[in-house]
Amino acid sequence: MRWSGWGDPDRAAPLPEPVVGLLRDVLGVRTGDARPVDLAGIAPAEPRLDAAELAALAAAAGGAEHVRTDATTRVRHTRGKSTPDLLRVRAGETSAAPDAVVLPGGHDEVLAVLRACTDHRIAVVPFGGGTSVVGGLAPQGVDRFIALDLRRMDALVSIDHESRTAVLQPGLRAPDAEALLAGHGYTLGHFPQSYEWATIGGFAAARSSGQASAGYGRFDDMVLGLTVATPEGTLDLGRAPKSAAGPDLRQLVLGSEGAFGVITSVTVRIHPTPAERAYEGWRFPSFAEGAAALRRLAQDGPLPAVLRLSDETETLIGLADPAALGSGSAAAGCLAVLGFEGTAARVADRRARAAEVLRDAGGEPLGAEPGEKWAHGRFDAPYLRDSLLDVGAFVETLETAGFWSRIPGLYDAVRNALIGTLSGSGTPPLVMCHISHVYHSGASLYFTVVSAQGEDPLPHWDEAKRAANDAIVGAGGTISHHHGVGTDHRDWYEREIGPLGGAVLRAVKDRLDPAGILNPGVLVPPAGE
Amino acid sequence: MRWSGWGDPDRAAPLPEPVVGLLRDVLGVRTGDARPVDLAGIAPAEPRLDAAELAALAAAAGGAEHVRTDATTRVRHTRGKSTPDLLRVRAGETSAAPDAVVLPGGHDEVLAVLRACTDHRIAVVPFGGGTSVVGGLAPQGVDRFIALDLRRMDALVSIDHESRTAVLQPGLRAPDAEALLAGHGYTLGHFPQSYEWATIGGFAAARSSGQASAGYGRFDDMVLGLTVATPEGTLDLGRAPKSAAGPDLRQLVLGSEGAFGVITSVTVRIHPTPAERAYEGWRFPSFAEGAAALRRLAQDGPLPAVLRLSDETETLIGLADPAALGSGSAAAGCLAVLGFEGTAARVADRRARAAEVLRDAGGEPLGAEPGEKWAHGRFDAPYLRDSLLDVGAFVETLETAGFWSRIPGLYDAVRNALIGTLSGSGTPPLVMCHISHVYHSGASLYFTVVSAQGEDPLPHWDEAKRAANDAIVGAGGTISHHHGVGTDHRDWYEREIGPLGGAVLRAVKDRLDPAGILNPGVLVPPAGE
Repeated sequence: MRWSGWGDPDRAAPLPEPVVGLLRDVLGVRTGDARPVDLAGIAPAEPRLDAAELAALAAAAGGAEHVRTDATTRVRHTRGKSTPDLLRVRAGETSAAPDAVVLPGGHDEVLAVLRACTDHRIAVVPFGGGTSVVGGLAPQGVDRFIALDLRRMDALVSIDHESRTAVLQPGLRAPDAEALLAGHGYTLGHFPQSYEWATIGGFAAARSSGQASAGYGRFDDMVLGLTVATPEGTLDLGRAPKSAAGPDLRQLVLGSEGAFGVITSVTVRIHPTPAERAYEGWRFPSFAEGAAALRRLAQDGPLPAVLRLSDETETLIGLADPAALGSGSAAAGCLAVLGFEGTAARVADRRARAAEVLRDAGGEPLGAEPGEKWAHGRFDAPYLRDSLLDVGAFVETLETAGFWSRIPGLYDAVRNALIGTLSGSGTPPLVMCHISHVYHSGASLYFTVVSAQGEDPLPHWDEAKRAANDAIVGAGGTISHHHGVGTDHRDWYEREIGPLGGAVLRAVKDRLDPAGILNPGVLVPPAGE
Repeated sequence: MRWSGWGDPDRAAPLPEPVVGLLRDVLGVRTGDARPVDLAGIAPAEPRLDAAELAALAAAAGGAEHVRTDATTRVRHTRGKSTPDLLRVRAGETSAAPDAVVLPGGHDEVLAVLRACTDHRIAVVPFGGGTSVVGGLAPQGVDRFIALDLRRMDALVSIDHESRTAVLQPGLRAPDAEALLAGHGYTLGHFPQSYEWATIGGFAAARSSGQASAGYGRFDDMVLGLTVATPEGTLDLGRAPKSAAGPDLRQLVLGSEGAFGVITSVTVRIHPTPAERAYEGWRFPSFAEGAAALRRLAQDGPLPAVLRLSDETETLIGLADPAALGSGSAAAGCLAVLGFEGTAARVADRRARAAEVLRDAGGEPLGAEPGEKWAHGRFDAPYLRDSLLDVGAFVETLETAGFWSRIPGLYDAVRNALIGTLSGSGTPPLVMCHISHVYHSGASLYFTVVSAQGEDPLPHWDEAKRAANDAIVGAGGTISHHHGVGTDHRDWYEREIGPLGGAVLRAVKDRLDPAGILNPGVLVPPAGE
């Protein structure tokens, strides 16, 4: 993975000329060279671990070769992949570098590392794909910390064909999990934008939601069992798909972002590989009319596996099709993308019935092309971000979810907050939005912001992001539909769940991690605040 | 509700002669008069609350008329509706009677009652329909306690037509909730066997699952928002259908059985009243073949709203049709019942597709009659129990759930445990079983046990129940699919979630209820154990 950006360096591409023109003429981006510094030239501060501590970690992780303190490895485990994270590492700022990277080989080794870190008061940041965009990898209030990289735990442990479940290790990257399952004729059906780099453990810890969530569910719907290593021992949860035996403790671990323990095994439901996958595009006159059409599918069916709707701006810019960015080819209105999966007969039946609903709701069919284009470029947006940053543009995303009746208010409030603050600081943005996840009773909203970087993008974005978060909480949305809380959203998360909800989290954390070594400052406020 | 049994006394019916013969000839029931003592003659011990305490409760609940200490009201709030509970109250045993019954009128009054009870160290048992079958209403290790009866909080607060959600108060009984929603064209779709008496708050607190769970989901799937009054303040949860903002705290409250707080408001998803409901019966040669057929529908669809399968014994006895009990009319094999709901076209389409799957899986269609009969008598079994107890028979139910691959082992283990222990104590039972809830990856098993009461039914049942619970845990099932934990299942629940899981529950309880007044001994082990 590119240390200073997203994914495979070979897939980064220069921006097409119309996009550069748009950035210059519309957003005032002074295009130029804003590329990152050289990795070789970055020297993070000396690790703050002594020889005895490193030896204890090596003993716990099964050997000195599984404890790395070289600069390159540490830089590659510094922060996550939010735009502020990237701007910092691109500038060579490595204050959040871990003191060491430790690679345990199994559950017992994780337990041993947690014990060693408790004894030595070393903080631990569980590390999967390193794709957090909410500051989930930059602990707060700690003297020194290790990144606990789970890449060695990357096995498909077992498949239960009758129950259609599989046991996966947490360090398995999503494409590898899909490939292993495909070897047995199955798919997990989880395809978030982070798919190429994110891991099974990260999906569980952060309550991930994939682009086919309407068909396969969110990752928290997929998880049937969890094993969790904590400083106080092991949690082993999930004896049935559903149970009335007390609260669902799996749902307390899902979304715990490494603050309660390290997920060392995940049992998930699996599905036979679909015989057919078909995508198509529809146009709606307005975002409101398109949203109403999506709501009809979500409430009365048939629900496609993929169901998305871009607003007018995102449709015009053509972000759904990065290759066509700036061409304005989609013309007016709002583009919806539908994806159907299953047997040929089921796909045909559901497509036909969905078409009936969408036509009745004012939609115009655009055929397969816009859908296939979206599917083809579905994991490309983060690469595009790297190219935009390189030429001096600022681009970032944020998201929320709410009940259907609150969606228009949420949309307006967040958009106005972003436009107002960034215009006020001299970098008027383009704000685009789409719905990418729908439920019976509500939907998500995903915003993309593009502007000039300006003189000092970090404080300007911080101000805009705070305004957007305030708008989300004020309009009754959740602070995150699928990015998570991390450190970035923590203050708003506490407003969302209230002081007593925060106190419950703190009580759980104190019981499982009394020394407070696990991801300090992530999700749960640091003790004493 | 009948104080010593189930439901409307007018609906109790004498047993048909073939059933009495079967009890006598097969199970050795010495039929005779085992009817309960007179309610008027029962005198529970004097309430252990002084005048100042009663005055504090009256002030908190909005008036002295909302604090009841008369014997009849206290007896009517004594224990729940398990067979051991009924045998005790039928004998006039009222050691578990609350010292007072308090009826708050709203969230703030609940908070005030909790404060008063914290100040005076009085335990609080939240009381909805009083239908617990797991000892959830008989606290342990307490000097004195009140039943907090929520019947005054019985409003449909609001409907959000766009989001298809409704806000309901906890004391609303299910038929009243359905009637109020039907007035607006909606249904909740939640029809557990306790439907006629159970309440919305109870459904949430105990993770109820209804007979149409395949179509509408479990109650925990339906809940989108919760307000909870605790001794430490209020929790207000649920800003979106789904969120990645931390653990799902709603799922920590669902199933908390009054041990963490009192649920004072529930936001649920609702559905347009279906135009059509159609039930039908199918016969399978064996339970294993029938289960395989249900699994195919659960994994590949189409999934009916209701999907049930009785084993050979239950089919033979005809328990699915209490009116035909003992007639043996269903002959050999296993009876499955399917129920479809929705528009006429959708019902027809799904019925046809389901029929194709079931025929292919070895099923024989029996037409509408067995399905309609089941639907007609679906809430009758608890009334039948009263009649059986009256003539000296013992009858009780228990249930579990597990992944599909474990279902045969669970079935055998529980059945053998029940037959072995009860035969050993001189009252060989009939053990019947059905699957009533199916999921992609597993199913529930619901057992009904009928035997003679024998000389001393309570210790004999206790032994059998312990053996069944051990069998469930040993065979990898959950200790309850929909009855809950209460006090009866607590020890096995701790084996299920492990000591660390239990410690997490205790930490949450200690934070929300530091004085330990809420349902002591229910769900969470009493402090110090």
